[in-house]
Amino acid sequence: MLDFWFDFASTYSYPAIMRVAPLAREARVGVRFRPFLLGPIFKSQGWDNSPFNVYEAKGRYMWRDMERLCAGLDLPFRKPDPFPQHSLLAARIALAAFDDGIGDDFCRAVFRAEFAEGKQIGDVGVLESILREFNCDPRAILERAQSGEIKTRLRAQTDEAARLGIFGAPAFVTTDGELFWGNDRLEQALAWAARKR
Amino acid sequence: MLDFWFDFASTYSYPAIMRVAPLAREARVGVRFRPFLLGPIFKSQGWDNSPFNVYEAKGRYMWRDMERLCAGLDLPFRKPDPFPQHSLLAARIALAAFDDGIGDDFCRAVFRAEFAEGKQIGDVGVLESILREFNCDPRAILERAQSGEIKTRLRAQTDEAARLGIFGAPAFVTTDGELFWGNDRLEQALAWAARKR
Repeated sequence: MLDFWFDFASTYSYPAIMRVAPLAREARVGVRFRPFLLGPIFKSQGWDNSPFNVYEAKGRYMWRDMERLCAGLDLPFRKPDPFPQHSLLAARIALAAFDDGIGDDFCRAVFRAEFAEGKQIGDVGVLESILREFNCDPRAILERAQSGEIKTRLRAQTDEAARLGIFGAPAFVTTDGELFWGNDRLEQALAWAARKR
Repeated sequence: MLDFWFDFASTYSYPAIMRVAPLAREARVGVRFRPFLLGPIFKSQGWDNSPFNVYEAKGRYMWRDMERLCAGLDLPFRKPDPFPQHSLLAARIALAAFDDGIGDDFCRAVFRAEFAEGKQIGDVGVLESILREFNCDPRAILERAQSGEIKTRLRAQTDEAARLGIFGAPAFVTTDGELFWGNDRLEQALAWAARKR
């Protein structure tokens, strides 16, 4: 079992979420999607914005690296505008959607909307139209997503990420507590999880 | 041709410098070693220390990641104490050593002393004893390393790194200006350089 931690606004989480399911199947490792919020974690490091905006050279490099990376994976890619997108509502809806068994598909669809189609994923209308792709009651999920229970769960999930030592996304954590950071470490994380099965 | 940029104090430059020569041979790509100083570049980003010391969670992760990485490569690994080590003198000596044709070997030996043997690479005695492993006049190289000409060259090399958009080490730059950051990108950088040959 491998926990896959991501923030919907995180650039490198896009190739990671598109790659994780087939690679996990091949490695015969179960994967649990754990959306969380990078905002509070970045804040505790002294940033009130994405480090890719705070550090200009790093940001310029990241956009070019994403272009190359997505081209190599045959993934369509557009720079979100503005960057970063607001990821709070998408994360809350994802938690509600997991309860209905459509969470993983919803998460992938949000990343596709954001990084392939240039959509505003902080917009409730965009998220509702994504939900409509799936066999669910979008209104009921949206309502649940705004409930105190889901808000508390998302806060708890974000606190757990910090406790696990997560400082960026994507991150992968095995059942024995090994942390792997970044899309580049997905294969290694799966291999570790498979060994400890 | 691929330029390999590194700072002697940089942790991920250790696996990179140990891997680059055989991989470059296999890819039939010439590699030029370009030591520079991360200090001024970090300073321009607002850090007066390694980001691995500034950001605790990131630092804790990096040490564990280095352990796993080096174990996988069968590279001996010890955490330098203190970290980061002073890399200025080693970088100046490297520039002088390149002129004598022993630069690449000297650079590898410095990283081995630092990350495998726990030596203090800011210590002139340590660096002199490394030079003595090679067919050279250590005293003459040390003297040249402290000349104004070498000091100017190292400053120019560090300015060039910043101009190329380098914000961390190791970094790889192809002749057509593509920048790749991190030990993880070595294979991709070589493939890019080979394609543009």
